[in-house]
Amino acid sequence: MAQLDDLDRAILRLLKEDARLTISEIAEKLGRPESTIHFRIKKLQEKNVIERYTIVLGEDFRPKALGIVYIQARTPVIEDFLEKYIAHILKTLAMIPNVLLVARSGADGIVALIGGENWDKVQNFVRETVEVLPGLEKVELFPIDDFEKGDGIVGFLVDV
Amino acid sequence: MAQLDDLDRAILRLLKEDARLTISEIAEKLGRPESTIHFRIKKLQEKNVIERYTIVLGEDFRPKALGIVYIQARTPVIEDFLEKYIAHILKTLAMIPNVLLVARSGADGIVALIGGENWDKVQNFVRETVEVLPGLEKVELFPIDDFEKGDGIVGFLVDV
Repeated sequence: MAQLDDLDRAILRLLKEDARLTISEIAEKLGRPESTIHFRIKKLQEKNVIERYTIVLGEDFRPKALGIVYIQARTPVIEDFLEKYIAHILKTLAMIPNVLLVARSGADGIVALIGGENWDKVQNFVRETVEVLPGLEKVELFPIDDFEKGDGIVGFLVDV
Repeated sequence: MAQLDDLDRAILRLLKEDARLTISEIAEKLGRPESTIHFRIKKLQEKNVIERYTIVLGEDFRPKALGIVYIQARTPVIEDFLEKYIAHILKTLAMIPNVLLVARSGADGIVALIGGENWDKVQNFVRETVEVLPGLEKVELFPIDDFEKGDGIVGFLVDV
């Protein structure tokens, strides 16, 4: 794993805030020569510390309501079926635009982040798209209201 | 709300993949004049469709294990206390580096995304930092294993 020093961390923090900062702007903010900043950023990219550059979409394009759903499948007699069934649900959910994130959760579970225009729509989605799936043991839905930390994820995840 | 057409969406999709693409690279990919692309991006920024540019950190700098924890507070006799207590827990959790995300969940709940070197550390964190809080009704922890969609969030959220 790449070792980072204070300068690397300072550069990364600035780029996290605004990845459009120029080399000379960063150099000025950190009181270091441009050549140093240029070299460090090059290294950070080569070592995949910076994996990629992206954009965060503004409020208008983010769903107004969010929920996290936990889905637990009933353990079937044939173990192999569970595996295939979970894979199938994961793939299906991932294709739906208002499913912002979906991941496996343990051997028999799935966690997804669902967006919608309002909380009713999120609940309806879970009722009509998730709860109707056969062979589920449990479906739990938790609303996500005001973010204290990490609210950028919605603008990061949302599709256009 | 800003109306987007197909060209706007195509530009946004390219920038989401790689926000370092130059105007001329985007122009070439989309078969449109540079002046058009330049104008569209300027508008997308002005209208806050593009809120900001950022970086996603690579695998080495992401926690290896993740879990989502749902915390429900016991409803106290004095409603006002609940409000202050939830606000206090939110603030406290937000300051901890391995709490990648924390948000309010309904009137009496909190949802947080916890990272750690391995699953044991995530569980220990929840046991030692969350479950010890007084006045809780319920704490549920769901592991987040392989992402089917949205895996960039960890590299987006993680602090350096």
